[in-house]
Amino acid sequence: MTGRAIRIIGIDPGLRRTGWGVVESDGVRLSYVASGLLTSTADEDLAFRLRELYEGIAGVIASFKPQEAAVEETFVNENARSTLKLGQARGIALLAPAMGGLRVAEYSATLVKKSVVGTGHAEKRQISAMIGFLLPRARVESADEADALAIAICHANHRQARSLVAAAVASTR
Amino acid sequence: MTGRAIRIIGIDPGLRRTGWGVVESDGVRLSYVASGLLTSTADEDLAFRLRELYEGIAGVIASFKPQEAAVEETFVNENARSTLKLGQARGIALLAPAMGGLRVAEYSATLVKKSVVGTGHAEKRQISAMIGFLLPRARVESADEADALAIAICHANHRQARSLVAAAVASTR
Repeated sequence: MTGRAIRIIGIDPGLRRTGWGVVESDGVRLSYVASGLLTSTADEDLAFRLRELYEGIAGVIASFKPQEAAVEETFVNENARSTLKLGQARGIALLAPAMGGLRVAEYSATLVKKSVVGTGHAEKRQISAMIGFLLPRARVESADEADALAIAICHANHRQARSLVAAAVASTR
Repeated sequence: MTGRAIRIIGIDPGLRRTGWGVVESDGVRLSYVASGLLTSTADEDLAFRLRELYEGIAGVIASFKPQEAAVEETFVNENARSTLKLGQARGIALLAPAMGGLRVAEYSATLVKKSVVGTGHAEKRQISAMIGFLLPRARVESADEADALAIAICHANHRQARSLVAAAVASTR
């Protein structure tokens, strides 16, 4: 199988801090493109902060031109107010790539951790360590960035698995 | 006080059904402009549905040109999954007017009901009945539309109260 390189953006959404990471995958090798953290102005009203977040993600997509996007399927056990707040940021994180014409995949936190660290119960520092190992050129300065890269890697692994299955099915025909 | 007429859009967000209603207020009189219901395609993926919702709201804003927006501050006592889903739709309902340069006010459900029916514990049918009374020209076909108009009316009342306070303060100077 000769893989064509594809760029993937992973997004770890939050109203105060949204991590993003772009990787390239040719189906065999993974490489780091860029990553960063978007923040919103805490004393502005909610609609304005969501607009900041939207424009931030849209700007990253315009700069690095990923072809596919992945966002974590967040599960929250906190109170309804925090869940609602996270949902609002997450809506923006899903919308921004969709408005750019990208397909947006969703993965559970457990699957993201399993893809990167090998277990679904990894701690944040284990994820950061594995990102350093898998993407040696990555310059990651926050846990949100590391999580976003982990989401992008999870998508790279799963879209590859899907391609292999499709190729195997095709070869038996 | 001579009021300049202002157009207000009220939005009652939901992933499956989002109600919207546009009213005009000159500070004394309220009048109905338009209202409707936006729905998203249930079997599409989430990012695509959020895009449908965003484009729907943006289209309504482009058609009816409201100058201010109001969205209900939703409180949910259901499970985390429904709250997250509502949050995602609500993020879009706040973003779309903000992207059009509109200020977006938020009001609690209790205040919206109080503004329209006179009590914070009104039932849906009481809201619909009061909408018919306050906006006799309104053609409202769903509870979500009636709720959206109630949110717009709540904002019309509260921005008017703010103007009166500002005028009173100015007259004492």
